Amino acid sequence: MTHTAELIAVGTELLLGNIANTDAQMLSKGLSALGINVYYHTVVGDNPQRLKAAVEIAKSRADIIITTGGLGPTCDDLTKNVLAECFGKKLVYDEESAERIRDYFQRLHPGGAMTENNLQQAYLPEGCTIFSNDWGTAPGCAFEANGVRVIMLPGPPNECTPMFEHRAVPYLQALADGVIASRTLKIFGMGESAVEARLRDRMNALTNPTLAPYAKTGEVELRITAKAATVEEARALIVPVEKEVRDIFGPLVYGADVASMEEVVLGLLKEKGLTMGTAESCTGGLVAKRLTDLSGASAVFKGGVVSYTNEVKAGVLGVPQEMLDEFGAVSAQVAQAMAQGARKVLGCDLAVSLTGVAGPNPDDRNNPVGLIYVALDTPEGTRVRELHLINGRARIRTVAATNAFDMVRRYLTGLPDRDA
Amino acid sequence: MTHTAELIAVGTELLLGNIANTDAQMLSKGLSALGINVYYHTVVGDNPQRLKAAVEIAKSRADIIITTGGLGPTCDDLTKNVLAECFGKKLVYDEESAERIRDYFQRLHPGGAMTENNLQQAYLPEGCTIFSNDWGTAPGCAFEANGVRVIMLPGPPNECTPMFEHRAVPYLQALADGVIASRTLKIFGMGESAVEARLRDRMNALTNPTLAPYAKTGEVELRITAKAATVEEARALIVPVEKEVRDIFGPLVYGADVASMEEVVLGLLKEKGLTMGTAESCTGGLVAKRLTDLSGASAVFKGGVVSYTNEVKAGVLGVPQEMLDEFGAVSAQVAQAMAQGARKVLGCDLAVSLTGVAGPNPDDRNNPVGLIYVALDTPEGTRVRELHLINGRARIRTVAATNAFDMVRRYLTGLPDRDA
Repeated sequence: MTHTAELIAVGTELLLGNIANTDAQMLSKGLSALGINVYYHTVVGDNPQRLKAAVEIAKSRADIIITTGGLGPTCDDLTKNVLAECFGKKLVYDEESAERIRDYFQRLHPGGAMTENNLQQAYLPEGCTIFSNDWGTAPGCAFEANGVRVIMLPGPPNECTPMFEHRAVPYLQALADGVIASRTLKIFGMGESAVEARLRDRMNALTNPTLAPYAKTGEVELRITAKAATVEEARALIVPVEKEVRDIFGPLVYGADVASMEEVVLGLLKEKGLTMGTAESCTGGLVAKRLTDLSGASAVFKGGVVSYTNEVKAGVLGVPQEMLDEFGAVSAQVAQAMAQGARKVLGCDLAVSLTGVAGPNPDDRNNPVGLIYVALDTPEGTRVRELHLINGRARIRTVAATNAFDMVRRYLTGLPDRDA
Repeated sequence: MTHTAELIAVGTELLLGNIANTDAQMLSKGLSALGINVYYHTVVGDNPQRLKAAVEIAKSRADIIITTGGLGPTCDDLTKNVLAECFGKKLVYDEESAERIRDYFQRLHPGGAMTENNLQQAYLPEGCTIFSNDWGTAPGCAFEANGVRVIMLPGPPNECTPMFEHRAVPYLQALADGVIASRTLKIFGMGESAVEARLRDRMNALTNPTLAPYAKTGEVELRITAKAATVEEARALIVPVEKEVRDIFGPLVYGADVASMEEVVLGLLKEKGLTMGTAESCTGGLVAKRLTDLSGASAVFKGGVVSYTNEVKAGVLGVPQEMLDEFGAVSAQVAQAMAQGARKVLGCDLAVSLTGVAGPNPDDRNNPVGLIYVALDTPEGTRVRELHLINGRARIRTVAATNAFDMVRRYLTGLPDRDA
């Protein structure tokens, strides 16, 4: 039997935009991995009538309801009361939970006096499965009534995530038949609509696995999702579709189940025992920043120069002044000289450079916004890409940086550089 | 009249947990600033029946419905069709929108052939207000029917945010009676709970204006919001509360209605005609990246060195090898020498440097994760801060970078540096 879950997040702070509903993202991923469908998320404030209305709607369209938030000690925390009422349950005092709450409080505030409202958290729906909370005070719980399973989890993500993984998942696994496996292929170098046009017929024809595209900044993700009795069978269903996609898009597919292009580049550099460095003008340190966002970057990244002025391009990277005068800073020639200079100055095996116009205004030579040169210097020579990017400074910088990583990736995997 | 808005996000990627619904957070903040209530967020997949059901429920409890997502060129993009059907509207072809889509495509793929599915985006509900999209292809729109105003915005946050701010907000402002003015004071150097404890009594006592704190990474925003008949009157209500807050927090308040510390620093440097540069180890280019995220950075930013290895610290920045050997790369001494070297090599008036352990592991001298030295070199000498940061690599890097900007800000405004 296929189960359908609905998520209800409770908290006025979500409706005011103080925080994003990241619990829903975490839960959705986890439920999808269990083969449980999720058709709706709802967010509602700390208001009993409106929460009740949301629960009544959820009861009519799902057989699993998971709430997050509203389990704490303050008077705003009303989730248990409302859910118990909606399903005709009483709240009963659980001494073991009370004990855990007192212990937790003492560990947090040794010798301090706990206010009585904390013990509200020890009242739980009669007959429920108690999810003890090792990551905070409020216990969670699960019960079944009227053919619906209700699971209540605390709201703070640092409690909700482990409570889901260690308490709710084992409870849900007992219900599941069949599992979901998915694989995400990452594509760089073709727009979403072109990718989709190329795949439309296949996407419409496929039912298990399914194939769906998602646009990222300058990239497209293709997710293949299969359902079967076991993970192994589900994975086996994915294999031929992955092959089909890779045959169509070839080297535009830069990875599978990876977070980013820089993660792929970091892995390739480690594998080959090579180091890289950067020389950045228009991206102003973004390439270095993205690579060093990843822990372990120090094994392959020597450093970088952000040469925002011609002085630094000449003085630190050794770009000849005559070249800067003749071609201007935004030129293929200067990009090459920057990469060559960085490779020498930083003492690395490979160096990428970027110079261009991020906007919002053209540069002093009237080069248009979005014209960027990216170069890669290697022991075997220098490659250059000319880019024409659009859609604002932030996107231009991001896509330019991804192009720099793509040039490194192609070089390290023995591919020629693509035309811009 | 008070309006109530409901947000409906459309996209299977949200239900699979591929992305978080950050659009809802952004919209909720913006609607709250306009004095519009938000009681529910709903997320639904790319499924016409379920979207229709969500719209019918929203119609019954809100007079403004804002959808995000599902406006793109692929067959999954069904928001316009469903909303038009729910409100008895036809979709009609808009030649101007089609022209913009063609232009956009040509800028992105000069000379390329646009697939026909892109023109689906030019079909819009009859009689609607078209929100032209300068940040992507799919236009948004707004219409009124059956007493409900419907607003449709594209899903990608880099389109949704500017489309809301520049298109939907002016449309919504025309509906409001009375106006809201707000002012956000930014505080760096005190935690959210300490700020809140300091202000709790005042926050509870105030009704117009209201005062509310929001935690950011290492920072606190205090938003003062007033409602009155005119903007001038609303602003006048804010003035004494702002003074009160500034009297309490003094130089911890680094700005009002500014996006970030780096924006304040950029303004101060421009005002004083000074330039700066960076030398980064643990932050790997993040300080340079954040400064150059801002257009106009080229007027004040000369460049930076990302010295991820000791070789680059010695070779490019001129940090003495004996110093590196004696004190290690993560030391106040090396931070000072990096800043001094960067100021000289980059030829700038001020230089900041950062060296430390971003994690996840201690360094080879067993310095703990989160130990960071930040230095600022100026014509009048060098300042150093020692930081002990927590909560993971990303947060440690971000807060360290903000500290670097804070040191520049304090120097440029004649303040002493704070104790770490």
